[in-house]
Amino acid sequence: MIEYNHPAVQYYQDVSEQCIHYLSIDGVIFGFHENQLKVLLLRWKGTDEWSLPGGFIRKAESVDVAAQRVVQERTGLDELYLQQFHVFGEANRYDQADTWKRTKLPVQDVNWSERTISIGYYALVDYSKVVPTPDFLTDECRWWPVDEVPGLLFDHNHIITVALQSLRKQLDDQPLNQLLPNTFTVPELQRLYETILGYPLDARNFYKKLIGSGTLERLSERRAGTPHKAPYLYRFKSVGV
Amino acid sequence: MIEYNHPAVQYYQDVSEQCIHYLSIDGVIFGFHENQLKVLLLRWKGTDEWSLPGGFIRKAESVDVAAQRVVQERTGLDELYLQQFHVFGEANRYDQADTWKRTKLPVQDVNWSERTISIGYYALVDYSKVVPTPDFLTDECRWWPVDEVPGLLFDHNHIITVALQSLRKQLDDQPLNQLLPNTFTVPELQRLYETILGYPLDARNFYKKLIGSGTLERLSERRAGTPHKAPYLYRFKSVGV
Repeated sequence: MIEYNHPAVQYYQDVSEQCIHYLSIDGVIFGFHENQLKVLLLRWKGTDEWSLPGGFIRKAESVDVAAQRVVQERTGLDELYLQQFHVFGEANRYDQADTWKRTKLPVQDVNWSERTISIGYYALVDYSKVVPTPDFLTDECRWWPVDEVPGLLFDHNHIITVALQSLRKQLDDQPLNQLLPNTFTVPELQRLYETILGYPLDARNFYKKLIGSGTLERLSERRAGTPHKAPYLYRFKSVGV
Repeated sequence: MIEYNHPAVQYYQDVSEQCIHYLSIDGVIFGFHENQLKVLLLRWKGTDEWSLPGGFIRKAESVDVAAQRVVQERTGLDELYLQQFHVFGEANRYDQADTWKRTKLPVQDVNWSERTISIGYYALVDYSKVVPTPDFLTDECRWWPVDEVPGLLFDHNHIITVALQSLRKQLDDQPLNQLLPNTFTVPELQRLYETILGYPLDARNFYKKLIGSGTLERLSERRAGTPHKAPYLYRFKSVGV
């Protein structure tokens, strides 16, 4: 019953030989576009089923390097800001039979791993620089607003929820400039905070807190194309210069 | 050259059959005693070499349950506050040959795992309730002040450093009451914060911030045995009652 010629079967056989069993990486790639926080998802070949990008750790590969590789392959970006945020280690994370059925892959016939413990990483990337790239198991790779993500394969909705909770908690420690172009207006930065936090902020308090933080530098230019009260452009000060 | 009768060899053979290869748990167990943050360490049989408690994940066991088991076995505590804080996944975390030599175990002869990826958990426990218990590979289990920890086996000094950094960052979200007896004075609580943070706090600001937080309840009793200006006892308010 095993379809030995199916490319997925070959893939999982290679993985089984070259990678660490029972372990995987899942990547929650966050981008900011049209005032919304978005996440990069993959649609599995010949289905309407979506999942996060993921992969496996080679036997002699550092876990961080494996995560970098997984995210790099889906985005085309070389230098990535990645944050390990949680290990998903439940013995029964999801219904395996049902999940593999939804993928329409014959891999349930390949006894690759009885369970998978997933190490979750989130990435903060510049939306405009990403070239979304499906892998050979998927037909499509594209951005979804985080609050419009469909029901995903595996436990990936849960993984996104935990990633977002982690990002919210660590907001002041994270390089949010990775999500923005080099220059931006204060209202644009406020929208970024709001879409991550999921609630609106008071513009005046936001402005005061930001200016007080001393991390921003106002440029002499203003946002082009705004006829009246054109807002100034800002950028993050370089650290350590 | 393999000492098949050595109990460690048998242990690692059992582990190799029953547990997930390449993965381990390391537990940083924090307690608070005599105004110091302390950590529970094990001395390996017939050596002066110390390490953190650790263990492995059974093939059908949740990672959190494995961590609970590891810490429970060394402390005798059933209900534990545990926080997963980091995965140590470098391809070469430490010099394996040198480390196994220091342990005086013959396990270097048993090809159990070429590398180990360790999932770090820290535990916050009530020092007075812990019964430090060595395992069969170790002679002694005892508390060390975090700033007097000796050079440990494996990369365990690094793991403690990262655990402490995580605890500091998450200080306001963590149930520090787990580290304290039921009642305590404000100066005692301040000492707990200071030993975690590693620097002194201003007593007046500390008091104001704490009272302002609304999480503490002042009791009518005062600390017994303090003749003058006996400080009031406090406890944490129950949540959700």
